Amino acid sequence: MQPVSETASQALGAMQPRTRLDLGRIRQARGEISRVFRDTPQFHSPALGDLLGCELVIKLETANPVGCFKGRGTEVAMSRLASSPGPKAAVCASAGNLGQALAYSGRARGIAVTVIAGKGANAAKIDRIRRLGGAVELVEGDIEHARERAREIAASGEAFLVEDSENLDTCEGAGTIGLELLDGFDRIDAVLLALGGGALATGVGHVFKTLSPATDIVCVQPKDAPALALSWRARSVVTTDRTDTIADGVAGRFPIPEVLNDLLAVADHVPLVEEESIVEGMRLLYRHAALVTEPSAALGIAAILEDPSRYRGKRVAAVICGSNVLSDTFSAWMRI
Amino acid sequence: MQPVSETASQALGAMQPRTRLDLGRIRQARGEISRVFRDTPQFHSPALGDLLGCELVIKLETANPVGCFKGRGTEVAMSRLASSPGPKAAVCASAGNLGQALAYSGRARGIAVTVIAGKGANAAKIDRIRRLGGAVELVEGDIEHARERAREIAASGEAFLVEDSENLDTCEGAGTIGLELLDGFDRIDAVLLALGGGALATGVGHVFKTLSPATDIVCVQPKDAPALALSWRARSVVTTDRTDTIADGVAGRFPIPEVLNDLLAVADHVPLVEEESIVEGMRLLYRHAALVTEPSAALGIAAILEDPSRYRGKRVAAVICGSNVLSDTFSAWMRI
Repeated sequence: MQPVSETASQALGAMQPRTRLDLGRIRQARGEISRVFRDTPQFHSPALGDLLGCELVIKLETANPVGCFKGRGTEVAMSRLASSPGPKAAVCASAGNLGQALAYSGRARGIAVTVIAGKGANAAKIDRIRRLGGAVELVEGDIEHARERAREIAASGEAFLVEDSENLDTCEGAGTIGLELLDGFDRIDAVLLALGGGALATGVGHVFKTLSPATDIVCVQPKDAPALALSWRARSVVTTDRTDTIADGVAGRFPIPEVLNDLLAVADHVPLVEEESIVEGMRLLYRHAALVTEPSAALGIAAILEDPSRYRGKRVAAVICGSNVLSDTFSAWMRI
Repeated sequence: MQPVSETASQALGAMQPRTRLDLGRIRQARGEISRVFRDTPQFHSPALGDLLGCELVIKLETANPVGCFKGRGTEVAMSRLASSPGPKAAVCASAGNLGQALAYSGRARGIAVTVIAGKGANAAKIDRIRRLGGAVELVEGDIEHARERAREIAASGEAFLVEDSENLDTCEGAGTIGLELLDGFDRIDAVLLALGGGALATGVGHVFKTLSPATDIVCVQPKDAPALALSWRARSVVTTDRTDTIADGVAGRFPIPEVLNDLLAVADHVPLVEEESIVEGMRLLYRHAALVTEPSAALGIAAILEDPSRYRGKRVAAVICGSNVLSDTFSAWMRI
């Protein structure tokens, strides 16, 4: 259960799982990420851990100007775009979090950012993108329609497309979370990751499967937005007609084949959780760890609630990936 | 407004304000503090800043196992006690936060910790002290009665007394927050600090008045627990009969003369704020920055709300010093 030392893993490059990602590039990515997004808090939460029956480690990705982990990936993407030839403009489709992060990282480097979102997207997130200097275009339909429109704009050559999870920078940027966890703890038995497009899961998963292969990589999706989880189980892309979850940050319907391949190489367990468990997870994080989280960030706690014996007595790291939620909605979920 | 460079300030030791604190020891303290308590997040909050009319920097001291900044001081105190001769036991009086932090830092070094609290202390905080391995003794009355009892125990020679703010380690540990802010920002126009016993205010104040003397050091106390603020204004100790504030973490009645002297040397402005402003500050931190805070942690935002012109357009750092609050109480304050 001891992680392989850095020297050993560097010598044994073959020990990396077969994904598109590379440990050397993930290490390099650390230097490309503004310090507001890296070296984030990682600490035991004894109160919540006792309650869940495990030694819970919180990895907190919300205390930064965009309230989520996605700055890690956009920092890497935009710092590479800034130093390459071609148009200094970028576009992405986003339910909000990627858009906020891209707007932040673009503005810091003089890159114009356009974010395409569905008209039903979280209003607070859209407002925040505009405050951060991003242009927003709202389209009919959901995030998949927004992705189509973003691809159109990119195809015209006007802007660099940051397709979440397909773009390697987004995965490798997220992977730096794994390096930090392994720097801070000599052993982690399980890591709980929200599974949306797949960047967080494949990034952190790649790092652990290289440096600490015995760590259980658990990637959690809502039962009501299960496309990538079903694809992982079928070992082949499964799409769904619609999603119906409060966890808007992870609600995709069309998994990307390359990302699925990466996920197949690193995930050990891909549970689907009920909406009620997600709300209960948010409630426990609020009541016992004083954290406001968006639903996606509570998927890991939901997974423990639905399958406590898997984690009993183990040291479990939960990545709290975002806190962008309307306070009225959050209050209602808290039953307050 | 540029901070004096480290080399210059080291050469000009005379530029330190006349307090009991020392910049060299504060620098040394950094190495004595576990990484779970230091290098905490410091980031712009554009949404809340826009609303308050300033460039707001959040310095977040809540994302650690004890949910407050006090671990900085107890780490320093306990690491020095561990390496000195004498009994390996410590005692403190605490409304909860210092007690949690001391229990944590003591346990990490094999030091037995006893915490004395008033019977009316916040139940969640007391419970947390016990979970962290501290023994708790509840006494009739408020924090001042608890301080008396702690001094009695220490006088018997059984335990080392950690008297918050009087003990220099608690001040110098808190001062490391100032070093981190100055590492991260080339200029800070004002720092907003909760004023309780005085450790946070004098620690951070000493660092700024040495390295960035033009920074406005604002130490905020509730109008209904004003003893140290009134003492600062009178330049002489003023005690009060009682306190009546929701900000339990800063509710002292008997200022310590040595701490008042230190405060006189570093504070520029010591406003007293209304209870309503504290609640509104917590509400804004919740709604626009997704932060759960205890009342003490919202004193800085309350000060901006009551005197916005002082901060207009300035870069203002607010130290968010704690999040230990019962969720039901917090929910009620949020009017949820």
